[in-house]
Amino acid sequence: MITFASDNVAGAAPEILEALTRANQGSAMPYGNDAITQRLEGRFREIFECDCTVLPVATGTAANVLSLSLLSPAFGAIYCHAGAHIHVDECGAPEFFTGGAKLVPLAGAGGKLEVAGLEAAIAGVGNVHSVQPAAISLTQASEAGTLYGLDEIAAIAELAKRHGLGLHMDGARFANALVGLDCSPAEATWKAGVQALSFGATKNGALGAEAVVVFEPELARDLPYLRKRGGHLFSKMRFLSAQLDAYLEGDLWLRNAAHANRLAARLSAGLCALPGASLSYPVEANEIFIRLPDAVADGLEAAGFGFYRWNPTLGELRMVTAFNSREEDVEALIATARRVAGLAAE
Amino acid sequence: MITFASDNVAGAAPEILEALTRANQGSAMPYGNDAITQRLEGRFREIFECDCTVLPVATGTAANVLSLSLLSPAFGAIYCHAGAHIHVDECGAPEFFTGGAKLVPLAGAGGKLEVAGLEAAIAGVGNVHSVQPAAISLTQASEAGTLYGLDEIAAIAELAKRHGLGLHMDGARFANALVGLDCSPAEATWKAGVQALSFGATKNGALGAEAVVVFEPELARDLPYLRKRGGHLFSKMRFLSAQLDAYLEGDLWLRNAAHANRLAARLSAGLCALPGASLSYPVEANEIFIRLPDAVADGLEAAGFGFYRWNPTLGELRMVTAFNSREEDVEALIATARRVAGLAAE
Amino acid sequence: MITFASDNVAGAAPEILEALTRANQGSAMPYGNDAITQRLEGRFREIFECDCTVLPVATGTAANVLSLSLLSPAFGAIYCHAGAHIHVDECGAPEFFTGGAKLVPLAGAGGKLEVAGLEAAIAGVGNVHSVQPAAISLTQASEAGTLYGLDEIAAIAELAKRHGLGLHMDGARFANALVGLDCSPAEATWKAGVQALSFGATKNGALGAEAVVVFEPELARDLPYLRKRGGHLFSKMRFLSAQLDAYLEGDLWLRNAAHANRLAARLSAGLCALPGASLSYPVEANEIFIRLPDAVADGLEAAGFGFYRWNPTLGELRMVTAFNSREEDVEALIATARRVAGLAAE
Amino acid sequence: MITFASDNVAGAAPEILEALTRANQGSAMPYGNDAITQRLEGRFREIFECDCTVLPVATGTAANVLSLSLLSPAFGAIYCHAGAHIHVDECGAPEFFTGGAKLVPLAGAGGKLEVAGLEAAIAGVGNVHSVQPAAISLTQASEAGTLYGLDEIAAIAELAKRHGLGLHMDGARFANALVGLDCSPAEATWKAGVQALSFGATKNGALGAEAVVVFEPELARDLPYLRKRGGHLFSKMRFLSAQLDAYLEGDLWLRNAAHANRLAARLSAGLCALPGASLSYPVEANEIFIRLPDAVADGLEAAGFGFYRWNPTLGELRMVTAFNSREEDVEALIATARRVAGLAAE
Repeated sequence: MITFASDNVAGAAPEILEALTRANQGSAMPYGNDAITQRLEGRFREIFECDCTVLPVATGTAANVLSLSLLSPAFGAIYCHAGAHIHVDECGAPEFFTGGAKLVPLAGAGGKLEVAGLEAAIAGVGNVHSVQPAAISLTQASEAGTLYGLDEIAAIAELAKRHGLGLHMDGARFANALVGLDCSPAEATWKAGVQALSFGATKNGALGAEAVVVFEPELARDLPYLRKRGGHLFSKMRFLSAQLDAYLEGDLWLRNAAHANRLAARLSAGLCALPGASLSYPVEANEIFIRLPDAVADGLEAAGFGFYRWNPTLGELRMVTAFNSREEDVEALIATARRVAGLAAE
Repeated sequence: MITFASDNVAGAAPEILEALTRANQGSAMPYGNDAITQRLEGRFREIFECDCTVLPVATGTAANVLSLSLLSPAFGAIYCHAGAHIHVDECGAPEFFTGGAKLVPLAGAGGKLEVAGLEAAIAGVGNVHSVQPAAISLTQASEAGTLYGLDEIAAIAELAKRHGLGLHMDGARFANALVGLDCSPAEATWKAGVQALSFGATKNGALGAEAVVVFEPELARDLPYLRKRGGHLFSKMRFLSAQLDAYLEGDLWLRNAAHANRLAARLSAGLCALPGASLSYPVEANEIFIRLPDAVADGLEAAGFGFYRWNPTLGELRMVTAFNSREEDVEALIATARRVAGLAAE
Repeated sequence: MITFASDNVAGAAPEILEALTRANQGSAMPYGNDAITQRLEGRFREIFECDCTVLPVATGTAANVLSLSLLSPAFGAIYCHAGAHIHVDECGAPEFFTGGAKLVPLAGAGGKLEVAGLEAAIAGVGNVHSVQPAAISLTQASEAGTLYGLDEIAAIAELAKRHGLGLHMDGARFANALVGLDCSPAEATWKAGVQALSFGATKNGALGAEAVVVFEPELARDLPYLRKRGGHLFSKMRFLSAQLDAYLEGDLWLRNAAHANRLAARLSAGLCALPGASLSYPVEANEIFIRLPDAVADGLEAAGFGFYRWNPTLGELRMVTAFNSREEDVEALIATARRVAGLAAE
Repeated sequence: MITFASDNVAGAAPEILEALTRANQGSAMPYGNDAITQRLEGRFREIFECDCTVLPVATGTAANVLSLSLLSPAFGAIYCHAGAHIHVDECGAPEFFTGGAKLVPLAGAGGKLEVAGLEAAIAGVGNVHSVQPAAISLTQASEAGTLYGLDEIAAIAELAKRHGLGLHMDGARFANALVGLDCSPAEATWKAGVQALSFGATKNGALGAEAVVVFEPELARDLPYLRKRGGHLFSKMRFLSAQLDAYLEGDLWLRNAAHANRLAARLSAGLCALPGASLSYPVEANEIFIRLPDAVADGLEAAGFGFYRWNPTLGELRMVTAFNSREEDVEALIATARRVAGLAAE
């Protein structure tokens, strides 16, 4: 089956698997005192052009909730988009790790937080009955497959700063976003005001590896303890770090993301040519949300193509391309869709 | 450097690394809906001869604290040995995951809990001011490298049952224990009264893979949610499950453990022949705690052998053999020690 | 100043103050083992016509969050009205006491939850990524001063039962509701499907006393420990219980509430006669939400009347009558408002 | 029955009950915005000769756990005496409110922490596997009825400072301690290095009133929110504050404590004259731990005197005098004991 249901159905990049084998030479000190982990932070610092703190973890949820627990007290409010992964897909992990902070879900076009909406929601400062505004979390690329422009991030960061709030970026698809934005990692994060980043690698080629990247040393002080008491410190850390190391090596992460983004653009363009097709959001990274006639969706499934029926009542589908999606599969999907829709081949 | 400092300095077993490559074929459903994970539970059920629930996680701390959160309410007391990993090496993770349970550390010869000590400690039932007795956690093999005999486990389980307490086994070195006990997995656990097992694989050849094994279906009901909200659910779960799958395949886990135990016995025997040597505990698995003259310890280090100076004031060293420790290294260490001690070669 | 800002600006009922003096005779066993506390549960059981469990606490927030912690696991979803006290006025206490449950705020006319809205919101059962539907909390009387009819409670309870959810009632103004409904305490609660009630007394005449009332023995099992570990167990409990005892004695609670409700009705009727006046919600207990011309509001303040400018942009005011509000003050307020509005005296 | 079982069996001081009646005049702003609460902090500041922050709560457990949550992170270690109330009598409340900190119980003669014991226990700084040393909590007067001398507190404070630890004092019987020490409140606390004090009033005459007193403004910053999210903020706060206000007025607190201490000294002296009597600890406040022949204990009970059989196997009794213990009851108890023991009247 050829599936575009999600980028987490993809396996691992061969370069990363090979790095595991290389990392398996001889003994290594545990818990991050190995050579690979030791050099990893340096590599991140070079890429992000600053003295960031970098702690590898194995899941995106772990990266998110550890980040949030740095930015919010137990009685804090964390503002996020109503569709944010931290709000709808983490089974209460943010509340758990922060000790009870409240996530405040906000509407926003294109899956993105808006300054006006944030401004309206931030309330209750100094009111002892109310959770206290603490942090903003934005997802880049967003859950709708769109990107915050650097100016949008900067505007949110300005608002955050004005209200004394922390700023977290859930970068489960950070590489895809970066490629889409065509800017430097530093510009996309701390230069725009981001304080803590969930740096995703799993969806883009790792087996299971993410990093909490914190751009202010003081903010990161408790992080090693929080990671450990969350059960997220690996004993054979080299195998976690080796994934991230290979991910960054030779810009594999950017090449992988560029491939996925390119195929998403192609797939999106091909499907948009169908009668009755309409994109729910602009395709700016590797996710496509598109409304297609049911007959087309049914025909694609019948032909063996997998995807996510995101909102069946609207006929909305989600398709996600990955680092290892194949060009021929994308072309085959488009050709099938055209045939089902009664169009000639391109 | 040839180090016996810990079994977590060892890399991964080649069979397990290869399984990752095999698991990397094609797409797979995420979050455990892949074929490898699906069959893994069946494999565990066969090995444990019961309908256990099995949830893979990446760290031993995660396995421990998820298990404990099934067995203790937030106002519970969890009885464990004073040297237990959950008490001294998990940075408060058990307290965090249980919502505030209190670990009650108990003395006990050979690193093992004793029925009399438990009986004396269990108190306060129904007293609203006191945390309520909830669970017992024993480590098998223990942190002292010793083993609870089946009769010892059964006696503790009887006490637990009598007091209405849950029984958890921290099996970070479960395979080493099983080989040492020479009994079946079922006999070593649920048949003796264990309700939840932290099934370790990392120290014995995995990259980072453990399993929470729960022997009563009702007890395991909330476990998937607790794992997720702890950030411990892998998206590309196949890579976690594949490690455990290969670990069990063809009894790799038992062969690896038998190797480590055999070398520990040889190493221990060799060192015990030195003048002034004395074992702190009987060597029943793959850990050796031995007091050696400082000159011997210094000489071994000078010769490039690594180990853990466990209690420097006592001259106590810890040496741990692993699945991939080499016989020639063990022999070389013994020979070096004899030479330093002024003995002839064996 | 004569203020109708809230019923918590009122002092204590003289009967309750006197009960404290009576309770101060001689020694008494602490922590609830005194005679007053011992008989209090019996009194509640008689009033509620069932073997309920009753635990006094000092604040409404404590009563609410202890109740909720009985009904929701840490990974649960608790559905409540968007204006619910537990959601907007308890600084994250429900999240804290439940260990991280997520409150799901819902819209609903008249400050009340609606079956359709609940039905639409309850989702994600068995989806490990989602918090699990656990409980519904309704406020009776509601934060808008309205009442759920018995049929409305029963319909919500039916839905709760069908989805396996617990049902909590925040009865900070339970007496006012009961008087408004003109039914028995049993009919208003467990007979309609309520499992746990925050029984309020503070707003209606106590100094600081509420009770957690649980209608199913098994559900209440952990409650004494949860109260204690929340710091909510009084040593000199007699002084807490005596307040509740006097509150129930001779139907003081119902008489107090009837008085407040009657004055609210009078005040509401008087103000509604003003040009430009409009009630935001029907006045069914002791709270009035009314839109008045700014000139009237200003004139009332200038004349020394206190109230809450609830929504200044709408000209919406909140006025609350209490057990000890004085008829002449109500009449004076109405007369002043008429004069400011240029109307003749009634 | 005349009981010396505990000082929490005593009722309330008449001056404090009367203050409640006085506080019940007219309306008052809720949640601490009333005149009594407003002036209370000033009164504390005068007494403690510094700009302390003062938050009233209703229970000693609440005061303790709120204090501790200011001083320890969730992954912290809190050192206390093995018999400390926070460790053995609060049902896990400290673990709950801190988010999982670990209490480290230490032995110590006379119920008091010792510098050497603390020094030996403080370990693991910077070790990510270990909870991090965070705070020391000492009880003054101690659970054994003894007092830390000012030099002893200063020595512990010096150690705390040297290790970067916070210092909390559980002053459930602070007034009794102060009278025993014959020093100023400032000398007994912040001048000796204490950062947060649980200021007890309940045992010494209040109905249920304590205060969290924090001596460093920055440290107290989050306290109002932590109190609220713990459910410990009173709406009709004036009734809580009025208790403390009357408690301090005209040195009632010190007079009450002096009375209790004096009777304890008399009772202790009287009983020590009996053959076979021996004090377990010096009587330095209002608690007596004494070993008496069983026949004497039985005889006292038969004559209607109540006390606590603290350690029956040792024949150890606890007797506690309170602010309202009567001189004639003390004399009667002594006379009865002498008669039972076969001694002539004094």
